[in-house]
Amino acid sequence: MDDTRIFDEKMSRRGLIKGAAGVAGIAALTAGGLGFLSKADAAKASPAALPWPYKKCTAEEIKQAGNIAHDNWFKGFCSYAVLSGGVEILRKKIGEPYASFPMELTTFAHGGTSGWGGTCGTLIGAGVLSTLCAGPKVGEAINNEVINFYATTSLPIFVPDHPKAQIRTQSVSNSPLCHLSVGKWMQKEGVGFLSPQQMDRCGRLAADMCMKTLELLNLWADGKFEAKTKAPVFANEIPSQNNCTDCHGSNVPKTSGPFGTGLDLLKAGH
Amino acid sequence: MDDTRIFDEKMSRRGLIKGAAGVAGIAALTAGGLGFLSKADAAKASPAALPWPYKKCTAEEIKQAGNIAHDNWFKGFCSYAVLSGGVEILRKKIGEPYASFPMELTTFAHGGTSGWGGTCGTLIGAGVLSTLCAGPKVGEAINNEVINFYATTSLPIFVPDHPKAQIRTQSVSNSPLCHLSVGKWMQKEGVGFLSPQQMDRCGRLAADMCMKTLELLNLWADGKFEAKTKAPVFANEIPSQNNCTDCHGSNVPKTSGPFGTGLDLLKAGH
Repeated sequence: MDDTRIFDEKMSRRGLIKGAAGVAGIAALTAGGLGFLSKADAAKASPAALPWPYKKCTAEEIKQAGNIAHDNWFKGFCSYAVLSGGVEILRKKIGEPYASFPMELTTFAHGGTSGWGGTCGTLIGAGVLSTLCAGPKVGEAINNEVINFYATTSLPIFVPDHPKAQIRTQSVSNSPLCHLSVGKWMQKEGVGFLSPQQMDRCGRLAADMCMKTLELLNLWADGKFEAKTKAPVFANEIPSQNNCTDCHGSNVPKTSGPFGTGLDLLKAGH
Repeated sequence: MDDTRIFDEKMSRRGLIKGAAGVAGIAALTAGGLGFLSKADAAKASPAALPWPYKKCTAEEIKQAGNIAHDNWFKGFCSYAVLSGGVEILRKKIGEPYASFPMELTTFAHGGTSGWGGTCGTLIGAGVLSTLCAGPKVGEAINNEVINFYATTSLPIFVPDHPKAQIRTQSVSNSPLCHLSVGKWMQKEGVGFLSPQQMDRCGRLAADMCMKTLELLNLWADGKFEAKTKAPVFANEIPSQNNCTDCHGSNVPKTSGPFGTGLDLLKAGH
């Protein structure tokens, strides 16, 4: 029996899972299901409570969101691009509380968080977007799928109505990290950082993440969203990517111990 | 002349910098200074415009924020901990728009973004907090300093009023990444992920990032905040950490080219 199944069984025995859709469902359950839902039920009128109202986007609106994201990359970079692409559409469709939402609040996340090359800012903007619309629990499950899409797909796919540069290259990051994603792409395209090509590539990739998030929100609104991707934290017993050898070479360290009693403690805390 | 100084000179000659405090100032300028400020001036009454009102926190309030962050780690993990630690204090001191703010919106960022081991979620919560209070431009400059503190300091420092576990270890991450930060600490402490020790360590570290953010916001409110840390994107011509050899060994790749014309394009876009 592999570790994941052991973990699944252990959690099931402890009664923590009621019909959760696999391990990604557990991740979402533990992150968002503790104390948030009852608060949301009690205060639905306040924008402080998530989720906010969501209405399914048409294919045309999703494409519009992609073009807004691409254009807005050049106003506030990647995280702002994804978040504003979604929020601008929802402001038109729904109004408040999106109209009063300060959508520049994750602008700092560009360049892998203030330029430090960590998590790609598009994934932070995407996570805020899915969380606003679907709440912390489902929002994280959707974000997990968006990250898997980001890490395993040859990108960018979206061709904007108003490209600012022509590009030749698509590449697979195998990672959610800005440094690896943009680094591999720049190496393949043969350009430097802040070149017109790199900027348009990142704008297009922002569009891809914005559109994927809205597509998954649409599925969720139809009751058809399914958490399919195993969160790497459960596969590897530590928050991680799945490309261990990229950094560790053949010498991948063992984790310091098995999962502890954390989820029990978290449950007991409420 | 090193690359940073060349970059500084080039940017200065192009008239992009007016009294910016070093390279971190440039990063903030480019990220937040393009189109946001005029919008904020024009719509100060709407919560959609940043920054929101800020009032300096007392030493006692900062300690309270640390304890709230530590406690709230056990409700929503690391990013929620930092953001809610600050917002709960500001709700008491200021009220709206903090009272209506959905402070669960970055909960997904735990575990390095939905458990993928990227940027530590504390730094995402910290960036949203500094951005809400000081706007995207200053918020990013503050976040850059918080990240440098995170990466270079032996952590955790804060001792909570109500620890859930006793811990022996402090460690330096040399990185903003969850995977490296918690991995190095767990190895030193000899415990696994979701052990009581690891969870209390991450709760204390969340308190440290929350309190550091409020301290820097206080300095900024007094006109004394100074951007001291060079954002690695400018040092390395790619979004990155500064610990290249940690992953690359001795074979650190050269960047694909020098900085392009990006900042000019960004400027022209407005």
